[in-house]
Amino acid sequence: MTEQEARARFAAARVARLATVDGEGRPHLVPVTFALEDASVFFAVDAKPKRSRDLKRLRNIAANPRVCLLVDEYDEDWRRLWWVRVDGDARVLDDEAERAHAADLLFARYPQYSHMYAGDGPGRLADAPAVVGIRVTRWSGWRFADHRSALS
Amino acid sequence: MTEQEARARFAAARVARLATVDGEGRPHLVPVTFALEDASVFFAVDAKPKRSRDLKRLRNIAANPRVCLLVDEYDEDWRRLWWVRVDGDARVLDDEAERAHAADLLFARYPQYSHMYAGDGPGRLADAPAVVGIRVTRWSGWRFADHRSALS
Repeated sequence: MTEQEARARFAAARVARLATVDGEGRPHLVPVTFALEDASVFFAVDAKPKRSRDLKRLRNIAANPRVCLLVDEYDEDWRRLWWVRVDGDARVLDDEAERAHAADLLFARYPQYSHMYAGDGPGRLADAPAVVGIRVTRWSGWRFADHRSALS
Repeated sequence: MTEQEARARFAAARVARLATVDGEGRPHLVPVTFALEDASVFFAVDAKPKRSRDLKRLRNIAANPRVCLLVDEYDEDWRRLWWVRVDGDARVLDDEAERAHAADLLFARYPQYSHMYAGDGPGRLADAPAVVGIRVTRWSGWRFADHRSALS
């Protein structure tokens, strides 16, 4: 799969899985909704209990910025299988303008955020406990058609 | 979500995402088909080019046995979201009887393997480049109903 195709499939997906690693080398996984712009992927840690900023995924990113994202599609017809992986470096966005821009991108993709933040206006997501930006360092992709040896 | 419910949702899923970590602390993700038995999850690295045993996921497990698996379901109605995470320790199965047993479990769940290994008999998966066993150390799960504060 070309990098261009990997990027297009990733951009069209509604959910990705985020892998982070803690200070002791243990991996951690959560699903994330996201927005892609140029070479950056953004996700928010949305409204949750007060200690959200202390979430494992954020502690891990502080300890080790290297993250991985995966989008994949399962089908019982394995000839339709494909996945796209993104390697990158993550950081919590502290700059107000950056946070607001990322929040706008997320709002544009997910009308659900509007419901969650109803009554506070659409800028409210920028006040979420954390908005994270991932600088993409590598695109990888696979689809069954790349894997001819499986049936030979 | 209780551990029992997390386990039941995981057991019913057809695909999970596997996170491994390399010797330098960088995470890696691939989707895997799997079988669960007691406190073990099994997956195979199936027929691929000769160097499959040298796959990144296997090099990572050799360097760091700590892995994480995630099963999740996305829905545009976020009230239906849920995920289940498994933390565990992985090892490539070298014992013939263990490999054959894990292969039987995988064959029983995925008739697709029979097609891939057609002509060689159902024991053939045990000769796949690698069969990996993960000893589960922790079950975690989340569903929207656990997350009431999101809309409050």
